[in-house]
Amino acid sequence: MHFADRLDAAIRKIGNPVCVGLDPRFDQLPKSITEEMIRQHGRTTKAAAEAVIAFNRTLIDATADIAPVCKPQVAFYEELGWEGLRAYAETIRYAKEKGMLVISDAKRGDIGNTAQAYAKAHLTAASGLDGGLDADALTVNPYMGRDTLEPFLDVCAKHGRGIFVLVKTSNPGSGDLQDLSTSTGKPIRDVVAEMVHALGAKHRGECGLTDVGAVVGATYPEQAKQLRASMPDTVFLIPGYGAQGGTAADAVAGFRADKRGAIVNNSRGIIFAYKQEPYASQFGETDFGGAARAATIKMAAELKAALGN
Amino acid sequence: MHFADRLDAAIRKIGNPVCVGLDPRFDQLPKSITEEMIRQHGRTTKAAAEAVIAFNRTLIDATADIAPVCKPQVAFYEELGWEGLRAYAETIRYAKEKGMLVISDAKRGDIGNTAQAYAKAHLTAASGLDGGLDADALTVNPYMGRDTLEPFLDVCAKHGRGIFVLVKTSNPGSGDLQDLSTSTGKPIRDVVAEMVHALGAKHRGECGLTDVGAVVGATYPEQAKQLRASMPDTVFLIPGYGAQGGTAADAVAGFRADKRGAIVNNSRGIIFAYKQEPYASQFGETDFGGAARAATIKMAAELKAALGN
Repeated sequence: MHFADRLDAAIRKIGNPVCVGLDPRFDQLPKSITEEMIRQHGRTTKAAAEAVIAFNRTLIDATADIAPVCKPQVAFYEELGWEGLRAYAETIRYAKEKGMLVISDAKRGDIGNTAQAYAKAHLTAASGLDGGLDADALTVNPYMGRDTLEPFLDVCAKHGRGIFVLVKTSNPGSGDLQDLSTSTGKPIRDVVAEMVHALGAKHRGECGLTDVGAVVGATYPEQAKQLRASMPDTVFLIPGYGAQGGTAADAVAGFRADKRGAIVNNSRGIIFAYKQEPYASQFGETDFGGAARAATIKMAAELKAALGN
Repeated sequence: MHFADRLDAAIRKIGNPVCVGLDPRFDQLPKSITEEMIRQHGRTTKAAAEAVIAFNRTLIDATADIAPVCKPQVAFYEELGWEGLRAYAETIRYAKEKGMLVISDAKRGDIGNTAQAYAKAHLTAASGLDGGLDADALTVNPYMGRDTLEPFLDVCAKHGRGIFVLVKTSNPGSGDLQDLSTSTGKPIRDVVAEMVHALGAKHRGECGLTDVGAVVGATYPEQAKQLRASMPDTVFLIPGYGAQGGTAADAVAGFRADKRGAIVNNSRGIIFAYKQEPYASQFGETDFGGAARAATIKMAAELKAALGN
C-alpha cells in the first residue's frame, strides 16, 4: 500500500494533520526520568538513551490516538552515539506499535549505492540480516541531484514507504540557496519542486497524492502557496510551527484547497509543553505526557480553525 | 590546533594525499571474516558489525603508515542499525589510535540546534555524558543555507575539527542543481564556493589553509580548476577516483599550484582491491589487507606522477 494512502487515511481517521516532533535532549528531560536512569546506569549514554526511550514512550502513549504522525529527529539521538541510535530504533518501533506513522527526520542524501544503504537503513526492517529502522518515511536532501533521490524511491515503491524532499526549509538562512533565482527566473526551490512533482508521477497512491513529499516551512507562507501550485499532489511536511514562529494561519498556507495533502510538525511546543504556561501549572513536570496531549489538542483545534473546518 | 594544520602536516609526513574510503558492505566482505562472525553471533546485525570492525581494523593496520586520512561512509554502518553505529564509532577510534585522521562522511545538515547536535555527535568525544563519534572532520550539505553551517563551525573552532561542504559532487546528476546558472550568471556551485571561502576566513590555520573544506568530485576536472580559483585556501576532499571513473590526472585538477590543499578518496579501489587483478592473484581474499596496501601505494604513485612530483 502506498505511503500516501496510509498517511491520508491516518489523517482522516484521527481528524487532524498534527505531527509530533520527538526531539528529546537529555539535559532538558524531566528530572524524574533522568535521575532514575542515572541511578540505574550511571552517567553514561546508556542512561541517556534509556531516559529518551522512557520519555518518548510516555509522549507516544499520550498522543497516539490524537495525532496521526510522529517525527523523531535523528540528530538528537545520534548525539548519544550508538546507544542513541538504539533509542531511535525503539522509538520508531514503539510509535508504530501504537498506530502512529513515523517519519525519520534524517535529511539524508548521497550518491547511488550510498543512498540505497540509507534507504535500507531507514525505510526497511531488514538489511540483509536483521535490524533496520523501518520508518514509514524519510526526509531527504536534494542538493546532489535527481539520481541521488531515485534509489530512495526504488525502496519506497518496494516497501510502501515515502520520502519528503527538502524544498523550502523553515530556518532564516533557507533563502541563501533555495531562493536564488536561476537564469530562467525560477528560484531554486521551484526547480526542486518541479523535480519532486515529476518524480511523484510514478509514485501516486489511490488517494491521488504521491509518495514523494516536500518539506515546506510554515515560516514562509507566501512561498508555500506558490509551491502548492507547482506540487498539487505532493504531501507537504510543514515544520516551523510554534517555537520557530509559524502560526496556524501560516502553516495552513501550504494545504490543498480540499484541506488535505499536508502535515504540520511541532516539536518543542508539544514535547516540552510541561515547561510552558498554561501547561506548567496545570500538569507540571510529572505529568509531561498530559501536557503534551493538551498541547496537541490545542494545536489540532488551531489548525482546524485556520483551515475553516 | 586547527584541523587544516593537522591535515597539512599529516599529508607532508606521509608524503601523499590518499584518503582510504572505509565503505564496507557486509555481503561483500571476505567470507573468512563473515562466516566466523556468523558462527559466533548468528545471522544478526551484531555479526555484521563485528565483521565490519574486523575488516576495517585490518585495512587500517595495512594503510595507516602510508595514507594520512581515512573516510568511513556512515550509510554503510547505519544500514546495520545501532550495532552498525557501534562499528562506526570503533572504526573511528581505531583509525585515530593508529595515527590516521578521520573524516566522518555523513553529509549532515539541519537548522541551528539540530546542526549543533550533529556537530557534537560527529566531532566531539563527549555529548554531555560519554560517547560521541569524535571524528576529525565531517562532510556537510549546504542546501539549507549558511546559518545551518555555522553551528558546525562553532564546534570546529572549539575542538580543532573541520568540515567539508558539498560543492560539486562526483555523481552524474550532480549538475541538476549544482550547475544551474543563477540570474547573475554564476552557477550554484560557485555561490556555495563563495560561501565556503567566506566562512573559511575566520577559520584559517597556520599553514594558510582553512578548516572549512569543500567536496569537489574528481569526475569534473574542469569545474574543479575553476572552483580552486574561487577557493584558494580551501582543502578539497576529492571523491570519484577509481570506481567512479576519475583518473589521477582528473583528481589533481583541484590541487593548488603548490600541490597542496587536497585529499583524494578511493573506497572500492582500495578496500576491495583483493577482488580485482592484479591484486586478486597476488594477495587473494585472505590477504585483503596486503591488497589494500598495494592499491594504496599504486594510487599514491599515480597521484605523485600526475602532480609532477
